[in-house]
Amino acid sequence: MTTAVSPLAPAQFPDMLSVAGVRLATAAAGIRYPGRTDVLLALFDPGTAVAGVFTRSKCPSAPVDWCRAHLKGGAARALVVNSGNANAFTGKSGRAATKLTASIAAAAAGCKPSDVFLASTGVIGEPLDATKFGAVMDHLVASAAPGAWDAAARAIMTTDTFPKGAAAVARLGVTPVTLCGIAKGAGMIAPDMATMLSFIFTDAPIAPAALQALLKSGVEDTFNAVTIDGDTSTSDTLLAFATGAAAEHGAPKISRASDPRLKAFTKAFHQVLANLAEQVARDGEGARKLVEITVEGAKSKASARKIAMSIANSPLVKTAIAGEDANWGRVVMAVGKAGEPADRDKLSISFNGIRVAKSGARDPSYDETEVSEAMKSPKVQIRIGLGLGKGRDRVLTCDLTKEYVAINGDYRS
Amino acid sequence: MTTAVSPLAPAQFPDMLSVAGVRLATAAAGIRYPGRTDVLLALFDPGTAVAGVFTRSKCPSAPVDWCRAHLKGGAARALVVNSGNANAFTGKSGRAATKLTASIAAAAAGCKPSDVFLASTGVIGEPLDATKFGAVMDHLVASAAPGAWDAAARAIMTTDTFPKGAAAVARLGVTPVTLCGIAKGAGMIAPDMATMLSFIFTDAPIAPAALQALLKSGVEDTFNAVTIDGDTSTSDTLLAFATGAAAEHGAPKISRASDPRLKAFTKAFHQVLANLAEQVARDGEGARKLVEITVEGAKSKASARKIAMSIANSPLVKTAIAGEDANWGRVVMAVGKAGEPADRDKLSISFNGIRVAKSGARDPSYDETEVSEAMKSPKVQIRIGLGLGKGRDRVLTCDLTKEYVAINGDYRS
Repeated sequence: MTTAVSPLAPAQFPDMLSVAGVRLATAAAGIRYPGRTDVLLALFDPGTAVAGVFTRSKCPSAPVDWCRAHLKGGAARALVVNSGNANAFTGKSGRAATKLTASIAAAAAGCKPSDVFLASTGVIGEPLDATKFGAVMDHLVASAAPGAWDAAARAIMTTDTFPKGAAAVARLGVTPVTLCGIAKGAGMIAPDMATMLSFIFTDAPIAPAALQALLKSGVEDTFNAVTIDGDTSTSDTLLAFATGAAAEHGAPKISRASDPRLKAFTKAFHQVLANLAEQVARDGEGARKLVEITVEGAKSKASARKIAMSIANSPLVKTAIAGEDANWGRVVMAVGKAGEPADRDKLSISFNGIRVAKSGARDPSYDETEVSEAMKSPKVQIRIGLGLGKGRDRVLTCDLTKEYVAINGDYRS
Repeated sequence: MTTAVSPLAPAQFPDMLSVAGVRLATAAAGIRYPGRTDVLLALFDPGTAVAGVFTRSKCPSAPVDWCRAHLKGGAARALVVNSGNANAFTGKSGRAATKLTASIAAAAAGCKPSDVFLASTGVIGEPLDATKFGAVMDHLVASAAPGAWDAAARAIMTTDTFPKGAAAVARLGVTPVTLCGIAKGAGMIAPDMATMLSFIFTDAPIAPAALQALLKSGVEDTFNAVTIDGDTSTSDTLLAFATGAAAEHGAPKISRASDPRLKAFTKAFHQVLANLAEQVARDGEGARKLVEITVEGAKSKASARKIAMSIANSPLVKTAIAGEDANWGRVVMAVGKAGEPADRDKLSISFNGIRVAKSGARDPSYDETEVSEAMKSPKVQIRIGLGLGKGRDRVLTCDLTKEYVAINGDYRS
């Protein structure tokens, strides 16, 4: 397995403020990885609202089942995340492990087990020994403190090569509120859910139903518009926690997502999601290029999304980009296989602003040398014009390299 | 690009009889590949019936358009196939090239252009210079002779590492008839059509409509059950030609696919298709393992097919197999993402006959050493039991290796 940091990584982990009402702690519980942290505990003040979106896999992990079952209450006091073991396809023992983990955390945090949220990432099918959480829980609770976002993001990494964080400040009414998010990604990333794991924290006083609506609409063009390998994880979890602590400083309590006072917050929330989603694409397993695919002129946005995803998930397109080859023939192929309305003879395609095909054939003015040079960029933008309607969409992916095969050919062994 | 023959190749090209009424010739027209043949001409006696199935791509190649337009006549006198250039996404010049190719062949063969069928495979988006066919056509017609199947199969190869042929003899009435088929595959292979190119020839007297019905039903569990990379080609073409020459020896003329006298022929026809389709999987780009995925206990055959294809197209499953890792967790993931009915807690999975998971969890009796040993086999059989119904299906694929990335990272450059 490669240990080098992705060449697409941000220069550094962002400066992130603490979120009032949230305390964080990490520990090395020895779940799978030696010599590193693998458990994150987040503690929330009473009154914290929670919302979540999850994988649409028909075979979800035990923690996903747990979170879904306890989301109805809308209240959260703790979040426990571990890396190294996904607690997925673990049958009865998996359900018992979630129950035990929640009990251990509830006892330590002084809350009900149903107020504890769980996420696990790592290998599938191996029993998760939840007693390991018991061994580190007292230490976690004792050391929980505001603002250790970098350490939190590191503790939940698996094959990620860099920790992923994003933050924003927005006004709610006249009161500034803080948003902080972390994520982990790497492989088994595809739309049709959130991403593998991501957690957003804010001190804004937003009721659970409104937070859920914000999350649901925010995820569509961010995490759901990212694909690494088209493989949908069993564990994808995106949770948002709103402590409401900013109410003390005058932030209005928000009960509906349509509240006009939410406008700036919604924008900031979306930015944090988009920032984290892009970092996930930048850290796709083996990625050397960030690829942005924009489809315009489709019959609808949904049609544009389907075509963009067909391109983004095509191994032939992705290997061509790894080879710095503007192989637009493969883009045509991927448009054609999407099954959506497309007229070959109206298609235009550009790579990094250079049009290589128009009206269903090679653009006679295109210069192979110029486009070859442009393909050396670490970011490749592919733009497809269908010329049929006004539907438009954009998705992010990365190239498919030999490193992806190497990473996934011996991840488990 | 690797030039080594796939380790999954058959020991040798099969012994194949000639088909009465079919003559073959090949030539090196210098379309793209130096020092090898790249054009195949097949000439058919008058009265030959033709049937075809094609890519469902919304951006089909010009030859696919040509064949579709001329299939209605049901009669064929010539087939021209070239490798090196797919004549796909070539706009007006592509249509002109098909017209010119058919005219050249028609003049040489003494038939109408509409009785000439065309197929092209290779790079997409480059204009095809059809005058190159003119330069070799007289030589092709003059040298056309029965039975040169090996040379025919070689002339249509692109990144294929071995020529693909299959043959059978069946009784039609009391008369033996011959079936011979060739195919080329390698990459951009996915279901939802035939394969890239395959041609079946028989001397059986079968009317076009009956031949079309045979082809359509035969392709479903053969070529349509093979995927290499999930990428549907713009050029997939499967044509069947029935010269009817066996009628002279007493074979009954068949006008309906439901004719009971077709039983043995249908079986042989299916075997030839299945054999060629398996060879395509065995020569998937970079393939080191042939992978057979069987899904049982699904709600329906269609549901089983969708789940089997989700597994067969998962990069994570395919890279695990390349790494000889029986990573059934990734199989669970792929079952879950298929979107078809599945109950995690009823799932069972086996690799090469060794059950690794049952009732939604790791099979406690499974021995990692034993399964690791089994994964070293060049053929990996994955069997999934869903425990829901009687739907069953089987698909073929290959592993995803670094060689796939290497081949496709610099195919065009």
